Amino acid sequence: MTLACIAGVGMTPFGRLPDASLAEIAAPAVTGAFVEAGVSAQDIEIAFVGNALGGLATGQESIRGQVILRHSGITGIPIVNVENACASAATALHQAVLAVRSGLYGTALALGVEKMYVGDTARTLSMIATASDIGEFERHGLQFTSLYAMAASRYLREFPDARLEDFAAVAAKNSANGELNPYAQFRKARSVPEVMASRPIADPLTLLMCSSIADGAAAAVVTSERLEGAVDILGSVIRSGLYRPNGFAPGPSSVGLAASIAYGQAGVSPGDVGVVEVHDAAAPQELLHVEDLGLLERGEGAAAIRDGRLARDGTLPVNPSGGLTSRGHAIGATGLAQVAELVWQLREDAGDRQVRFDGRERRVGLALNTGGRTVDDRAAIGVHVLELR
Amino acid sequence: MTLACIAGVGMTPFGRLPDASLAEIAAPAVTGAFVEAGVSAQDIEIAFVGNALGGLATGQESIRGQVILRHSGITGIPIVNVENACASAATALHQAVLAVRSGLYGTALALGVEKMYVGDTARTLSMIATASDIGEFERHGLQFTSLYAMAASRYLREFPDARLEDFAAVAAKNSANGELNPYAQFRKARSVPEVMASRPIADPLTLLMCSSIADGAAAAVVTSERLEGAVDILGSVIRSGLYRPNGFAPGPSSVGLAASIAYGQAGVSPGDVGVVEVHDAAAPQELLHVEDLGLLERGEGAAAIRDGRLARDGTLPVNPSGGLTSRGHAIGATGLAQVAELVWQLREDAGDRQVRFDGRERRVGLALNTGGRTVDDRAAIGVHVLELR
Repeated sequence: MTLACIAGVGMTPFGRLPDASLAEIAAPAVTGAFVEAGVSAQDIEIAFVGNALGGLATGQESIRGQVILRHSGITGIPIVNVENACASAATALHQAVLAVRSGLYGTALALGVEKMYVGDTARTLSMIATASDIGEFERHGLQFTSLYAMAASRYLREFPDARLEDFAAVAAKNSANGELNPYAQFRKARSVPEVMASRPIADPLTLLMCSSIADGAAAAVVTSERLEGAVDILGSVIRSGLYRPNGFAPGPSSVGLAASIAYGQAGVSPGDVGVVEVHDAAAPQELLHVEDLGLLERGEGAAAIRDGRLARDGTLPVNPSGGLTSRGHAIGATGLAQVAELVWQLREDAGDRQVRFDGRERRVGLALNTGGRTVDDRAAIGVHVLELR
Repeated sequence: MTLACIAGVGMTPFGRLPDASLAEIAAPAVTGAFVEAGVSAQDIEIAFVGNALGGLATGQESIRGQVILRHSGITGIPIVNVENACASAATALHQAVLAVRSGLYGTALALGVEKMYVGDTARTLSMIATASDIGEFERHGLQFTSLYAMAASRYLREFPDARLEDFAAVAAKNSANGELNPYAQFRKARSVPEVMASRPIADPLTLLMCSSIADGAAAAVVTSERLEGAVDILGSVIRSGLYRPNGFAPGPSSVGLAASIAYGQAGVSPGDVGVVEVHDAAAPQELLHVEDLGLLERGEGAAAIRDGRLARDGTLPVNPSGGLTSRGHAIGATGLAQVAELVWQLREDAGDRQVRFDGRERRVGLALNTGGRTVDDRAAIGVHVLELR
C-alpha cells in the first residue's frame, strides 16, 4: 500500500562546517528537495524538523525548527520539532507520513539537520552521550562505541566462521562507495589492511570501522498525491526499543520486529528489496542489521561480504552512499540522508555509485535508521520501505 | 467533524516537586488518563511526549520520552519526542490526532511534562530564554515577560477605557478559580488590590499577574473510535508564528488565524464555545487572547472582565482551572493541562469549579496554548476545539 509519496529529496553534503549555523546547514537540503519536487516554500503545509544535538551545540532549544526554517522562507505553518537521537530524521519522516495520511495536510516537509563540530571533540562526545538513558548508562559505565564493540565481539563468538577482517571489509566496501558520492564526508577508498591497521577505538573496533562526527542535513517533500517522478513510501515504521527486565531476551530483535511490520505494510518480502541503507554506526552493525532485517540468514553476513553480494554491483547492494562510516553520520540528519540516497538510486540518479536493478520485477529500497540507547536496546528504530513505480 | 476522540485525561498537580524525576512527575498523569480511558499501557500504540526544558533541567536529551515512559510500563512502541516551547503539549496532542487519523494507529498517548524547579531560579530563567529565537532576542535585548508587558501597555494605550485594574481583575478571577482546583499550584483567592500591590515585575505587570515556575504533567489518551464517555476533538490546529520582514503587520493575528482554521475544521462558531482555557502567561494575555479568538470584540475585554462574563459562573467562563497564573505553567505540560480541564468541565466532573452550560445547545470547549517567541510573534500556537456529545 502506498502510505505517501516522496516528491523530492535534497541533501547538504556531510562534512565539517564549523562556521555554518543550523539554518545555513539546512538550507541547501531544503532547497534541493524543493527543486526536485517542483514546489516552493509556500507549498509546504506542515514541517517536521528532526535534530538531536542543536540545543547543546547552539543554545537554541524548543523552537529550533522555526529558527532554522525561517532562513529558508518557511514561516506561519505548523512546525514540529521532533527528537529521537540518531533516528530523529526517520521519526520526522514518519510524522510527515502521518500528516499527509491524516487528510489534514497535502504537502509536508521532513528535515533532518545536525551540527556536531563545535570546536571541541570532548564536548561533542558529551553531547552524544545524552542520547542514551543517562541514568542507566552512568550506573553501568556504558558508552555507544563500547556497545557496538561488544555486539561485534559477540557476533564473532557466536559465528566462529566470521572474522574481524569481514567487518573491516564492510568498512572498505563502504569507503569505495563513499569515494563516488559527492555528498559523502570521506571520499577515499580504503583497503581491508588499512582499516585493520587504523587506530584501535574499542576492541575489536578500529577507527575506520567507526562512524564520524559530521555536520549535515537532508530533507524530503512528502505528498499525499503522487507527483511526476515521485517515489512511493510503502512502509513507515518507528518503534522504540525495549527495556527488558532481565537484560537480553530471546526472540526477534527490535529491528526485526520493526522490519516485519514495515514489510507487512508495504506488501513486500525481503527478497523484493533491491537496495538498502542501514545504520552502520560501526561497520559490524551493517551485517547485524542486514541479518535482523531478514535480508540474510543469521550469521550469513560474513559470507555475504566476502562474496561481494553487498557491494554496489552485488545482488544486494548495501550502503551505496558509503553509509555512516563514509557518507558520515550527522546524527539528526542520517535517516533522511539514507532516504535521499534510496530515492536517487531508485530513480537511477545516483551517478557513479548507481546500483543496478537488472532482473528485478520491482524497484524497492529499504532504509534502517536507529537511535539512542536504553540499557539493553536501541531507543528508537525507523524502517522505511520505498518503491519507484 | 470529529478528528479523533479523547478517551481519558490525567494530570499531576502542578507545583514544586524538586525531588521528583521527569518520569515520576509524568506517572500520575499517565495513570490517571489510563484509568479514565479504561486502557492499560499495553493498549497504547504510539506515544508523543511534549517537553521543553528536560534536556537542560536533567541532562537527558534526545530520548526523554523513552526514559520517562519506561517508568509507566510503556516500551517497545513508537515514542516521539516533540518540542515546541510552551506549546509542546498542544503539539503532542496534534500529533496524536494525526496518528489516529492516519489509520495506522488506533490508540495514542499524548503527554506533556515539565520540571522547572532545579534549585536555582536564575538557571530556570536562562532555560526559559532558550525558547525564544536566541539570536534575535540577544540582539534586541528582549525577554518574555517584557514582551507581555509591552503588549499590555499597548492594549491600555489602544483602548483608553481599559485600566490596569482590569488586568488585575483577570488575575484575581483566576486565583478564585485556582483556589477550587486541586490540581492548581496556587490555591489562594487574591483581591484586585492584592494583585495591584504585589511586587512589580515588568511595568505594568505585577508579580500576581505573571505565571510561575512549576513542575507538572498532563496526559490524554486519544483514540480513533469513540469510547464510552469520550470527548470529541473537532478542531486541532498548530501554527508557527510569523517572522515578518517589517515587524508588526496589520491583518488578523496568528492566534486569530489559527482559531479561524480550527472553527472551520470543527464546524462551530465562536458563539458555540461554552468554556475556554487560554494561555495567560501574564494576566493581560487572557483578554488579548479571548479577543483574538473572536470570542469578544477587539477592546471588549475590559468590559467583559468587569461585568463578570469571564467568571466561572459567567456566560463565557475563561480559565476555570485558574489558568497559567494560578493553576501554574509547567511549560511543556500546559497545553494538555488545559485540555484535561476542558474534558472535566465538559463532562461536569470539575467539582467545585464546575462551569454551567445552561441554555447552550452544544457543549463545546476551546484551548489556546502558545509557545516560544520569534522576534515579532509567538513561535507556536495550538488551538483545540472539543465537544461532548
